[in-house]
Amino acid sequence: MIKTVHIKTKEQTAFYNITSYVRQAVIESGVNEGIAVVFCPHTTAGITINENADPDVVCDLSLALNKTFPDRPQFRHAEGNSHAHMKSTCIGCSETVIVSDNRLLLGTWQGIYFVECDGPRDRTFYIKVMRG
Amino acid sequence: MIKTVHIKTKEQTAFYNITSYVRQAVIESGVNEGIAVVFCPHTTAGITINENADPDVVCDLSLALNKTFPDRPQFRHAEGNSHAHMKSTCIGCSETVIVSDNRLLLGTWQGIYFVECDGPRDRTFYIKVMRG
Amino acid sequence: MIKTVHIKTKEQTAFYNITSYVRQAVIESGVNEGIAVVFCPHTTAGITINENADPDVVCDLSLALNKTFPDRPQFRHAEGNSHAHMKSTCIGCSETVIVSDNRLLLGTWQGIYFVECDGPRDRTFYIKVMRG
Repeated sequence: MIKTVHIKTKEQTAFYNITSYVRQAVIESGVNEGIAVVFCPHTTAGITINENADPDVVCDLSLALNKTFPDRPQFRHAEGNSHAHMKSTCIGCSETVIVSDNRLLLGTWQGIYFVECDGPRDRTFYIKVMRG
Repeated sequence: MIKTVHIKTKEQTAFYNITSYVRQAVIESGVNEGIAVVFCPHTTAGITINENADPDVVCDLSLALNKTFPDRPQFRHAEGNSHAHMKSTCIGCSETVIVSDNRLLLGTWQGIYFVECDGPRDRTFYIKVMRG
Repeated sequence: MIKTVHIKTKEQTAFYNITSYVRQAVIESGVNEGIAVVFCPHTTAGITINENADPDVVCDLSLALNKTFPDRPQFRHAEGNSHAHMKSTCIGCSETVIVSDNRLLLGTWQGIYFVECDGPRDRTFYIKVMRG
């Protein structure tokens, strides 16, 4: 019922398209009508939904994340990655997508992304498909 | 089980109160206990919950979105709306509300909003009510 | 099925670890497999998931929230707390966590937080555990 996926990220801040994993989990679940919850168990990464067509969009989003949520001299956390924790909280660590007719009810241009904010690292995410 | 709603937005950045559509979908569903998921299938818009009383609040929120997530000269996406994609990712494209006694369990001052970040456009959103 | 929790916040901007309340609600629900939805019915507060180990992280997050989403002279809302409404919309007012084997499927370093953005105040949040 819960699918666990492992990925290796290669950049400090980057978007990884994980839509195919979620689509596959929906098919395997056999759930026709319900929801799919994608959950990131890390505190310096997140899950978002954004454009799947032009790769410049997620490139611009990485730049905007770094500009909007910079490292700050007043930060006290010794690991030095409080900016990544802030990105995680503003992106959010999960997405809930409607499942209809055993398919994700996404818009034409939508893809589901794992957002790395403090890479490169070995990362994990969970997919749960619920009937209802 | 899934309700699809179409709206026309009139501004570049603006908040549209969609609470009555969600409330109606809950009534029509006949679900007494469960959740309602509101999902936006666009990548330059989002769904949020905020104050329903003083219209100055959502006016201030539009201004804050434009100030916090501006267009940037380094953006590469040819459509020129990467700032709207960034707003969408930080607002989020869905909300999940608890349903109790066939009603949305919202706070007194809470309304559900469709947030346009790259209008005016014809837009759609989905409402799914799940029993449980 | 829905648990209501009341807390008193003591700061203007601060993070309150509410993981133990959610964990207890899951145990009381008897739900082995499903989801837990944590919902904040206020428009100047939110729910997030972030680091539970070093208290400097949430201290840095409070600072980053105040720097990223400041009060602005153009704001019109007479209560003067539009910055707190903006923080609420970017943090989000709910979190959905997967429940597996009657436990929250959180990462090792993840805690669930009630985020006060306009305190001190008396606050409430809801926890709903759904089987599925």
